[in-house]
Amino acid sequence: MAGLLREAAPASSGAPHTALSGGTGGPGALTPLLRTVLAALAEGAGRRGGPLAAGTPAELAADVARVFAEADGDDALRRLTDVLAHGSADPADPACAAHLHCPPLAVAVAADLAVSALNPSQDSWDQAPAATAMETLLLGELAQLVGYDPAEAAGVLTSGGTESNLMGLMLARDRVLGRETGRQIELSGVPGSGPRPRIFTSAAAHFSVQRSAALLGLGEDAVVPVPVDDQLRMKPKALAAALSACVAEGDLPVAIVATAGTTDTGAVDPLRTCASLAAQYGAWLHVDAAYGGGALLSDRLAPLVGGIALADSVSLDWHKLGWQPVAAGIFLVKRAETYASLARRAVYLNPQDDEEAGYPSLLGLSLRTTRRADAFKIAVTLRTLGREGLGRLVDACHELAHSGAAAVRAHPRLELHADPVLTAFLFRYLPENTDPEHIDRINAGLRRRLLREGRAVVGRTELPGEGPGRVRLKLTLLNPHTTTDEVQRLLDAVVAAGRAEEEL
Amino acid sequence: MAGLLREAAPASSGAPHTALSGGTGGPGALTPLLRTVLAALAEGAGRRGGPLAAGTPAELAADVARVFAEADGDDALRRLTDVLAHGSADPADPACAAHLHCPPLAVAVAADLAVSALNPSQDSWDQAPAATAMETLLLGELAQLVGYDPAEAAGVLTSGGTESNLMGLMLARDRVLGRETGRQIELSGVPGSGPRPRIFTSAAAHFSVQRSAALLGLGEDAVVPVPVDDQLRMKPKALAAALSACVAEGDLPVAIVATAGTTDTGAVDPLRTCASLAAQYGAWLHVDAAYGGGALLSDRLAPLVGGIALADSVSLDWHKLGWQPVAAGIFLVKRAETYASLARRAVYLNPQDDEEAGYPSLLGLSLRTTRRADAFKIAVTLRTLGREGLGRLVDACHELAHSGAAAVRAHPRLELHADPVLTAFLFRYLPENTDPEHIDRINAGLRRRLLREGRAVVGRTELPGEGPGRVRLKLTLLNPHTTTDEVQRLLDAVVAAGRAEEEL
Repeated sequence: MAGLLREAAPASSGAPHTALSGGTGGPGALTPLLRTVLAALAEGAGRRGGPLAAGTPAELAADVARVFAEADGDDALRRLTDVLAHGSADPADPACAAHLHCPPLAVAVAADLAVSALNPSQDSWDQAPAATAMETLLLGELAQLVGYDPAEAAGVLTSGGTESNLMGLMLARDRVLGRETGRQIELSGVPGSGPRPRIFTSAAAHFSVQRSAALLGLGEDAVVPVPVDDQLRMKPKALAAALSACVAEGDLPVAIVATAGTTDTGAVDPLRTCASLAAQYGAWLHVDAAYGGGALLSDRLAPLVGGIALADSVSLDWHKLGWQPVAAGIFLVKRAETYASLARRAVYLNPQDDEEAGYPSLLGLSLRTTRRADAFKIAVTLRTLGREGLGRLVDACHELAHSGAAAVRAHPRLELHADPVLTAFLFRYLPENTDPEHIDRINAGLRRRLLREGRAVVGRTELPGEGPGRVRLKLTLLNPHTTTDEVQRLLDAVVAAGRAEEEL
Repeated sequence: MAGLLREAAPASSGAPHTALSGGTGGPGALTPLLRTVLAALAEGAGRRGGPLAAGTPAELAADVARVFAEADGDDALRRLTDVLAHGSADPADPACAAHLHCPPLAVAVAADLAVSALNPSQDSWDQAPAATAMETLLLGELAQLVGYDPAEAAGVLTSGGTESNLMGLMLARDRVLGRETGRQIELSGVPGSGPRPRIFTSAAAHFSVQRSAALLGLGEDAVVPVPVDDQLRMKPKALAAALSACVAEGDLPVAIVATAGTTDTGAVDPLRTCASLAAQYGAWLHVDAAYGGGALLSDRLAPLVGGIALADSVSLDWHKLGWQPVAAGIFLVKRAETYASLARRAVYLNPQDDEEAGYPSLLGLSLRTTRRADAFKIAVTLRTLGREGLGRLVDACHELAHSGAAAVRAHPRLELHADPVLTAFLFRYLPENTDPEHIDRINAGLRRRLLREGRAVVGRTELPGEGPGRVRLKLTLLNPHTTTDEVQRLLDAVVAAGRAEEEL
């Protein structure tokens, strides 16, 4: 079998367009097509020659539209892959460091090919016999990683932190309000006189908390933003006061959402305090560890998220600090018996007599029906590198962030917001004119300049609060192969772009 | 570049485990790993030797657990891929025909590899410059396919029909109830005195409608099941009566969900009647065309879903009649201005000044944040085969279903439920003893026997209603390369398994 890729015909005369990826013939049909893809990826990346292609969004969209209009038949795969590669912001390039957007490991990508080719779907056993078993095994290991008892925990693979956070809040809502009680959205326009459900989360938490509250019919204003300290962590006293005020007003504290690793700074809320307040007020504790969950892989960093096992539910994202291609979200609950909202009998998917005959079903664990076997690539990665190997990658990114922050602090024209907690930090360029609006404009402009010139993909955000002077640049270091010199060059490019903006 | 796959070292001595898939070095790192995957896929499929591996779920799970415990380091990718392939229910096998679970096209799988390797994320332009443009272009083409004006329509790629249906119902709810008005779930336990939101859908509609109503805080009992005819289509008079009764009771008809292609029989609700009743009662019309949307690819079958363009929103699933690996869901709305619920400003993803500078953002179109570029594989497939080429695959599956139904009708021990509409039909085996409970037991048992013996993956469902005698088997024919002889042999295997069950 080792010569498999060598035996196939060249792509141009390749298999008919309607060849399938499965069965014993699938690998032969895939061979010339994969060769085409690899060549086009190399070609597109070579033409790009950096973290992204130079040009405006409109220019790039015009390129794509042209290829979209021209590509046809045999040549479509090559041409579209080439334009996708050329027009990507590639997180494998050291100068692409804006978002929680990781460069995937080649081994995870290869594993994901097997999933595409076989196309298991996790909504019934008879669409995914082995993949069902594998997801269950993987979730047991991830529950242990979090510190849950795997015999009591349960979970599911998700599309990411947003879906996981939604699931945590759904369980919290339904524990209080009931799933099928037919309680109705009130239409009178006058707030009900009964207790109002409330969700507590920090002002620096992910926007998906508000979005979930709206989706769940609780309204965005069910979310009570709790003030943060200057490291953007929830203030314990402020949380206690908000909960106390909620109860005094006759309202109902449904959930506390603590963040273990905020998107911008990696800040970790005081998890143990959140857990004891949740217990005191009878609220569900969900920990959004989409980013900070990566610390669990590193002996050195794991203490940062100490207390996470006290949560009723947790979000993890292995497409962040886990180096998986999207999607690799994970939702875990501490006690399987609290995971009832989605239990569902579909006569065509999980009839009762099949379950009694030993056919397991994951249908009732997910918001989705058809569902890709995203557990597979994670399982392969974990088996290939081990927790230790992955922990070394986490540590490398953490160290890189510290060296980048030190370089910022050492530069007279750069201002550091705070030392990195995980692998990201905020900073800004300081122009001559220190008017806050001017500083904001220069920083936003220099970032777009770097994009337009194809030099760098740097993050940009705003500190919580009101008024000018809150724009910050961000480096999110997720490429473990990036060197400290490369981070230094990236910061030099930021300064050069800032100077150019000042000269406009 | 054509020799790329040939130059790499063999997998066993391959690249370090931490090699990345991106950049100019990615293709070289992927080469030996992909070779390993292709060989393991062929090996696993060969050992399986049929639609699925023989054995009980417990036996198969034990196999997986053993490999899971043993696989390690260099060997993990090969061993886990092998066990995944061996333990798959492979829709590329002609005897795997249970679900809307398609065998993917090799070209779509190859395209999906490019997405895994480059890892664009659709939540911000600077994580997906080309992929953002490509998704927008593709959605314009799909809007046209549905019959929408692409200049007025909008949409997004989703994880599948369940997510798309949820989005349609969310827009319907928010149009009536408002997104951020802070309206509250009533906690008194006494139904409110105001009008209650109601959703109308057929008794044969997908369970995700009820699930969505629960998730959205409307309660499952907000869904009014409308009676169906013997072809499992919504009865127009029954829908009109249900709407009229709703209004008479002072309740609010929020949405009608029509199905274009039910999961079990492919039944298409009377779309034009649904549209005029929706207009008359001011309700949102969502058409779940996750399955039947495939008819739009075929000149011959497109009339089956005539009137679909009258819907306010539509679900399509190209991982059904579209031959894509999961996920390839599509949600479309007729008028972009009705698509406001998710509009969202995240300072770190789509700041206003970036949008003003021409940087587009798809963030506000999706329930997700991080989001894989599933549009790419669809775009490549559409460019490679064209609508016409895909339409031929749809027609082939449609003809196969008709020949299968004719074979059922011709067999004295098989009973057809109804002629196929799209590519699926229901039937059952008739044992000697025609007691309804006995017939159900034999049919459920023969299906598990076929699974256990590794002979076939046949669907099983129940007709709507109460009481015994409603269990049916199902063939869902999605493999365009399957022959009529192979379908005949599959039916013969069903009969043989039925006889064996009778002899127990």
